[in-house]
Amino acid sequence: MFFVSRMLEKNIDAVESVTEAVRYLENSELTNAGVGSNLNIRGSVECDAAIMEGKQLMFGAVGAISGVQNPVTVSAKLLTRQLGKKLSLGRLHPSVIVGEGANKWARENGLYTVDTGCLVTDYSRKTFNSHKTKLDILNEKINSKKRKFTVQSQEKSEESCAVLETEEGIQDTVGAIVMDTAGNIASAVSSGGISLKQPGRLGPAATYGAGCWAYNQRPGKPGVGTVTSGSGEHIMKTLLARESALSIQRENNVSLGLSNSFKESFLGCEQIKQQLQSEFLEGEKEKLAGVLALGQNEDKTVEVLWGHTTNSMCIGYMSPTLKRPKVVMSRLPEGGIPGQSFTMSGVSV
Amino acid sequence: MFFVSRMLEKNIDAVESVTEAVRYLENSELTNAGVGSNLNIRGSVECDAAIMEGKQLMFGAVGAISGVQNPVTVSAKLLTRQLGKKLSLGRLHPSVIVGEGANKWARENGLYTVDTGCLVTDYSRKTFNSHKTKLDILNEKINSKKRKFTVQSQEKSEESCAVLETEEGIQDTVGAIVMDTAGNIASAVSSGGISLKQPGRLGPAATYGAGCWAYNQRPGKPGVGTVTSGSGEHIMKTLLARESALSIQRENNVSLGLSNSFKESFLGCEQIKQQLQSEFLEGEKEKLAGVLALGQNEDKTVEVLWGHTTNSMCIGYMSPTLKRPKVVMSRLPEGGIPGQSFTMSGVSV
Repeated sequence: MFFVSRMLEKNIDAVESVTEAVRYLENSELTNAGVGSNLNIRGSVECDAAIMEGKQLMFGAVGAISGVQNPVTVSAKLLTRQLGKKLSLGRLHPSVIVGEGANKWARENGLYTVDTGCLVTDYSRKTFNSHKTKLDILNEKINSKKRKFTVQSQEKSEESCAVLETEEGIQDTVGAIVMDTAGNIASAVSSGGISLKQPGRLGPAATYGAGCWAYNQRPGKPGVGTVTSGSGEHIMKTLLARESALSIQRENNVSLGLSNSFKESFLGCEQIKQQLQSEFLEGEKEKLAGVLALGQNEDKTVEVLWGHTTNSMCIGYMSPTLKRPKVVMSRLPEGGIPGQSFTMSGVSV
Repeated sequence: MFFVSRMLEKNIDAVESVTEAVRYLENSELTNAGVGSNLNIRGSVECDAAIMEGKQLMFGAVGAISGVQNPVTVSAKLLTRQLGKKLSLGRLHPSVIVGEGANKWARENGLYTVDTGCLVTDYSRKTFNSHKTKLDILNEKINSKKRKFTVQSQEKSEESCAVLETEEGIQDTVGAIVMDTAGNIASAVSSGGISLKQPGRLGPAATYGAGCWAYNQRPGKPGVGTVTSGSGEHIMKTLLARESALSIQRENNVSLGLSNSFKESFLGCEQIKQQLQSEFLEGEKEKLAGVLALGQNEDKTVEVLWGHTTNSMCIGYMSPTLKRPKVVMSRLPEGGIPGQSFTMSGVSV
């Protein structure tokens, strides 16, 4: 965070700074983004990444992209292109590009591509092998049962399976939010997606409104940035980044807004003892997500908040009032149940 | 629409019926979906399609898929898989799959794939050749100017270019909304995207909340289905299908809801003489979109409404109270400016 802080001091804008922050995290083997991403069911890496800026409310994303070490830089280029003039013949610039086309677009636009194998680490290969072995053993069991009892469906057999994440502690999506000296807010996310995912599967880190949101302060509306992480398809259905941001703006109170939106539109009624339904996730027993929010109040104070239903969430932050970046490992309170309990904390910066 | 009507009489549900309706439109060479889709900049077909159902609020989509004549059937299979049990090892079913992975998933799930060339028609090839020639001539002009005046930027040169759509009358995205005899609502869209698009570009027909929305009636909330068509990236930024549906539910009035949402969140203030800003499309001179909505009122009456800023929009509808399907070619009133003026009409069915 030191280098982002230095970038901001040099008046480098929010989009460029947040791209650099996420690029740094993608380069780390410790995260499920860029190098060290989870492997898909075919043992290959496909990444999602998105960026949004709060001034012109532009969004850029790549999905299921291979052979790019820093997917966020491709998203950032897609975003900045939209800030310029239209393409020839009146065509609008694309905001989201996926698959092989995304890799080609990156190359044609002067971005660095690599052999996809370079993104695989010893750890990600080892994790893949362990997960794949479990899956193969399970499939063999199912097939064996099928041979014995042809009436039993595969779906029925799958009910009692252990969940990969909780056993292996998979590293998660990365995200960052930056407010620059001019008050512009930008947010970005990047993810290798869930282990053993289907090739071509698009996750929240490539989905508008799901993985990140940014909105500069305007008259009567506080500025806000959010990034999310967790169970991809649940975050997509609830458009969690966008809904959290809109709730913060509606309440004009960062804590109340984040807590309300998170509980009402994601977790549902059990936790808040009201008749509120998270109707988009009805019947889901385990709802795993984390939201990091940077919210600007009308008095110009800025708050950084994090709320999550996952067992833990790692957050780092820095501001001109701080000498050193702060790092927090937030955990559910004792007795909390991942996917059902919620915890929230934060600071004014 | 006759066959959809007959399907509904036989108690076939909304999801299956709406899939069949869109499949029929994809098979027509007259539409920009499936067979006859616009060609991308490389002269190939890549399609987007999505479907949503209003009971469990599930969504399935494919993006930038090649070699599939009926992309909507792949989306429908992605949706119905989510209605069943989870995948083994606790993995969630994907809701969106793109690119080559989507084609593979279709094949692995028993869906019909074709050689992508089969989707190209004489008309789509002719249109592509015409557009590509224009683009090449333009690029040559730009390069020639660049050689003469190296200070002039390409972006500057592009400002005065003609827009493809208005010159050639490109056929548009297709969509359908169905309410079945049990009151379930489902909506689906399918599109070949804009002519000369970037390979891999994802459009609204693959984007959650942009191309279609469906929500069954619940206590205090009317049921609603919407589908959209128009300038892709603008529809994505404004999540037009979702926002139109939510507005209809908020107003508890289909006409007022559609008209308000369309003007406020898409077109902006000029048309309604208020200080409302379509802040997501600020500065855009031409905002082209059409929304078809099926809205259920509290008294169980159902309205079909269409509103658009495009020059024209073609709608067909059928209901048990009608003997034959009705077809309407809606046009902007005389003097209306495409991308700036709005018209809306509809019927109770």
